[in-house]
Amino acid sequence: MATDERADEPERYDYDLVVIGSGPGGQKAAIAAAKLGHRVAVVERRHMMGGVSVNSGTIPSKTLREAVMYLTGMAQRDMYGASYRVKSDITVEDLFARTQHVIGREIEVVRAQLLRNHVEIHNGTGSFVDPHTIEVLDDDGRRTRFAARFVVIATGSKPHRPDTVQFDERTVVDSDGVLALDRVPNSMVVVGAGIIGIEYASMFAALGTRVTIIDKRPTMLEMCDPEVVESLKFHLRDLSVSFRLGEEVAGVDSGAHGTVTRLVSGKKIAADTVMYSAGRQGQTHALQLEAAGLSADSRGRIKVDSDYRTEHPHIFAVGDVIGFPALAATSMDQGRLAAYRAFDEPARELASVQPIGIYTIPEISYCGRTEEELTRDAVPYEVGIARYRELARGQIVGDSYGMLKLLVHTETRELLGVHIFGTSATDLVHIGQAIMACGGTIDYLVDTVLNYPTLSEAYKVAALDATNKIRAVARFSEI
Amino acid sequence: MATDERADEPERYDYDLVVIGSGPGGQKAAIAAAKLGHRVAVVERRHMMGGVSVNSGTIPSKTLREAVMYLTGMAQRDMYGASYRVKSDITVEDLFARTQHVIGREIEVVRAQLLRNHVEIHNGTGSFVDPHTIEVLDDDGRRTRFAARFVVIATGSKPHRPDTVQFDERTVVDSDGVLALDRVPNSMVVVGAGIIGIEYASMFAALGTRVTIIDKRPTMLEMCDPEVVESLKFHLRDLSVSFRLGEEVAGVDSGAHGTVTRLVSGKKIAADTVMYSAGRQGQTHALQLEAAGLSADSRGRIKVDSDYRTEHPHIFAVGDVIGFPALAATSMDQGRLAAYRAFDEPARELASVQPIGIYTIPEISYCGRTEEELTRDAVPYEVGIARYRELARGQIVGDSYGMLKLLVHTETRELLGVHIFGTSATDLVHIGQAIMACGGTIDYLVDTVLNYPTLSEAYKVAALDATNKIRAVARFSEI
Repeated sequence: MATDERADEPERYDYDLVVIGSGPGGQKAAIAAAKLGHRVAVVERRHMMGGVSVNSGTIPSKTLREAVMYLTGMAQRDMYGASYRVKSDITVEDLFARTQHVIGREIEVVRAQLLRNHVEIHNGTGSFVDPHTIEVLDDDGRRTRFAARFVVIATGSKPHRPDTVQFDERTVVDSDGVLALDRVPNSMVVVGAGIIGIEYASMFAALGTRVTIIDKRPTMLEMCDPEVVESLKFHLRDLSVSFRLGEEVAGVDSGAHGTVTRLVSGKKIAADTVMYSAGRQGQTHALQLEAAGLSADSRGRIKVDSDYRTEHPHIFAVGDVIGFPALAATSMDQGRLAAYRAFDEPARELASVQPIGIYTIPEISYCGRTEEELTRDAVPYEVGIARYRELARGQIVGDSYGMLKLLVHTETRELLGVHIFGTSATDLVHIGQAIMACGGTIDYLVDTVLNYPTLSEAYKVAALDATNKIRAVARFSEI
Repeated sequence: MATDERADEPERYDYDLVVIGSGPGGQKAAIAAAKLGHRVAVVERRHMMGGVSVNSGTIPSKTLREAVMYLTGMAQRDMYGASYRVKSDITVEDLFARTQHVIGREIEVVRAQLLRNHVEIHNGTGSFVDPHTIEVLDDDGRRTRFAARFVVIATGSKPHRPDTVQFDERTVVDSDGVLALDRVPNSMVVVGAGIIGIEYASMFAALGTRVTIIDKRPTMLEMCDPEVVESLKFHLRDLSVSFRLGEEVAGVDSGAHGTVTRLVSGKKIAADTVMYSAGRQGQTHALQLEAAGLSADSRGRIKVDSDYRTEHPHIFAVGDVIGFPALAATSMDQGRLAAYRAFDEPARELASVQPIGIYTIPEISYCGRTEEELTRDAVPYEVGIARYRELARGQIVGDSYGMLKLLVHTETRELLGVHIFGTSATDLVHIGQAIMACGGTIDYLVDTVLNYPTLSEAYKVAALDATNKIRAVARFSEI
C-alpha cells in the first residue's frame, strides 16, 4: 500500500475526508470519520439526501409494502375473511402518502445525524478534478472545489435499462418508475424474477393486480431454501400471480390501451403495465473518474480491495457502486470500515454469517447454509421445523402459513442454517445469526426460555423437533 | 431421593404418566413423555383444554391486545393523526370475536398435538385417591380411576380475590371477569399495578377508557429499567391514565350507576368498572392433595425441589401452581423437564438468562441486569441507546417512541443487559439474550451485518453508541 498521501500534512487539505454520496454507505463513512475527530464533508445532489436508498430504493419500497399490508388488511384476512380490506378502493394517493411522509422523515434523520456530528453538507454533483480535488456543481451552475485528504465514493446505483426496451414512464417502467405510477394497474408484467422484481410483484398482487412474472432462468430466488421458495410461489399463485420462468421476452409493444409482451416461445401477454427489473448499475458517469486516474466497468462499478480502497490508496469506494451484495446494511458497514481504514483506526472484518432479507409478502429471510449445500458437502444434518399456525402468536397475528426451519449438525449439534418464511422473518433471523456467530448450539435453544407468546418461539419448537429426531436415530442405533 | 416407585414394574400401572391440567406446563410434560415412548394421559375439565393460559389468561389477553392495536389504529396514529381509528365505535363484539376465534384454534392445536403424540385425554376434574391413583369426575358425574406410575400436577392458578371486595362480575371484576364485560367502560379503576393490571390498563386506555391505576406500592414494575417505566407512564398519561401510587383502597361501593372507590387518604374515584388485579393463587382445592399425603400453602401453591418433585418423588408439580415466575414460557420448560426427570432422560437445567415480556401498549421486554443492580455491585458499565425514530424501520412502522438500551461491561465488553420499550420488544429481546447466553460481546454487534430496514438494527446502533463512548473515555485516558 502506497502511503505517500498519509505523509502529507493534513493542513494542506480543506477536509480530512470528502464523501461523495449520502446513502447508507456514505453517511456511515462520514459519521465514523467525524466521530474520530476529523473534518468531513458530504457531497450530495439537492433532492437526493439519503441517496437512492431513501429516495427511490429500499425505503420507499419497504414503506409501500407496509402501506399495502395495512390497507389491504393482508394480515387480518385469516381472521376477517379473504375479501377483507381496510379500504375498498386503494388509490396511489393512499399508498404514496405514507411513502412521502417516511421519505421526508428519513431525509431529516440523515441530515440531522450529519450536522450533529459536524459533517458539512455540500449540495450538488461531485466530480474529480484530480485525485485530491473534488468539484461540486450545484443546481444554479456554481462550481466549488475542495482539497480532500481522503475520498469515499458512495454514489450508489440505478436500475439497469436494456437498450432494447423503450421506457415511457407510463406503461413501461423500471423499478424507479413503478413508484411514480398514477394508478394501481389492473394487470402487470414483471420482467426479471430477482429480489426487486419479486418484491414488487408480491405488493401489486396483494393490491389485486393480476401479475405475470417472466424470467429466462428456470428457477427464482435460487439462494433461498427451495421449500421457502415453493411456499412463496404457492402464496403468490393464490393472489393470481402467473409464473413464466425459463421464458425470454422477444419484445414489448405499448399503446394507448396498455402493453403486449411477446415471448420468444410465441406467447403474448397483455397488461396495463410492464415493469423491468433487470438488475442495477453503478452511478459513476458524473464522477469524472478518469481525472483521478480511475475507471469503472461496463456496469458502472468500481473495483476495490478488501479494505474498500481503489487503485489510489486514499480513494475508497463503498456500497452499490462496488457491486455485490449491494444491500443497504452491508453498505453501512463498508462505509464505516473505509473511514476506519483511512484513519488507521483498528477495526475487525465483518462477521461472515450475514443474513439475507427479502421483503416479499410474506417475507423471507435466512442465514447460514442451505440443505443443498450441506448435502453437496456431505455434512450430516437434521432438520427442525416450526409452523407458525402451531404457535400461539401465529394464531394471534393471523399468520397460518409461516414457518421456520433450522438445519443442525447431527454430531456437533451446531446450528448450520436458519430459513424463515412469514411474519417478521427479517427480524427473527437475527436470533439464529447470533447463536451461529457466537458459537451456540441447538442445545442453547432447547435449554432457553423465550417470551410467550412470541414468534421467536418458532426457534424453540424447531430445536425440539430437530433434537427429538436426532434422539430417535440415536436410540435406534443403540438397539 | 427415594426410588421405591421406580423399582415397580410399569405393567402395574394404567399409565406411565398422568398429567393433571393441559396448560402450557401439562401439555409439554405429556408430549415429552409420549415422545420418549411412554403411555401418557392428560386430565382436563371439558371446557378448559389448554388451561388458564388458553381460556382466560395469556392467550385471550394478548389476542385482545392485538385486536385493540388493530381496531384503534394505534400503530398508524403517527401516520394518520391521533384521532385515527379503523373503527370509530369499537364494541366488545369486535374485540372478542377475535379472541374467541384464537381460543378455538388454540384448543384445536393443543388437542391435535396431544392426540398426534398418542396422549389420551380424559375430560373431567382430577383428584388423588392415593399417591398412585387418580380419579376423574366428569360433567355427568361419572367417576373413573387410573393407576399412574408418575403424576405431574399442572393445575394452574386463578385470580386471587381479597375477602374484603364484593365481586359482582358486572361492575367489580377480576382479570378473568374483565374478559366478560358487556361493553367497553368509559372509566375504569385498576387496583394493583402488577404486570396483569398494567397490561389491561393500557389496553383499555388505548380503547379510550379513562383509567385510574391504584397501588399501595410507591412504584410500579420495579424489575424494569426505570427509564423504560417512565416512558411507559408518559405514554399512558398521554392516553388519559391517572396514577395513584402509594395509595391504599379503603373500599369500593357499587350501584346501578357504577362504582366509587374510596382511598385511605380520603380521595374518592368514580368509575363504571373496577378491576382488581391482586395476584393469582394456585388451583389446588379440587385435587384432594391430602389423599396423596401432600399439601398446599395459603395461596394454594405446592412446594417442589429443583427437579420439580414434590415430597413424593413420583409426583411432580409445574407451572403457576408452584408459584414464581408463573409464566407460560417457563411452565412449558418445567413440564418438559419434569417428564425428563421422571424417566431419567438426560436434560440440562434451564439457561439462567431469562427474558421478561410485558404486553403493555407499547410493549416492554428485557433480560440480564439493570443499571441499578450494576451500580450497586460496582460493575463498570457503559450505556448504548438506540431510538426507533432514528431507524428507518421505526419510521416505516410509525413507532416514534421506541428505544433499546444496552448495558455493556466497559472492560470485558460483555453484554450485561438489554432493555427494550416499543414495537416487537418481546421478540427482539431474544437477540440480546442469545448473545449473552452464547458468550458474545458488544463487538459481535459492531461487526455484524443485520437486515435493513429492521427494528433489530437498534442493536447495532446502540452497540456503536456504547463503543463510541468507551472509545472516547479510552482516548481521554491516553492523553
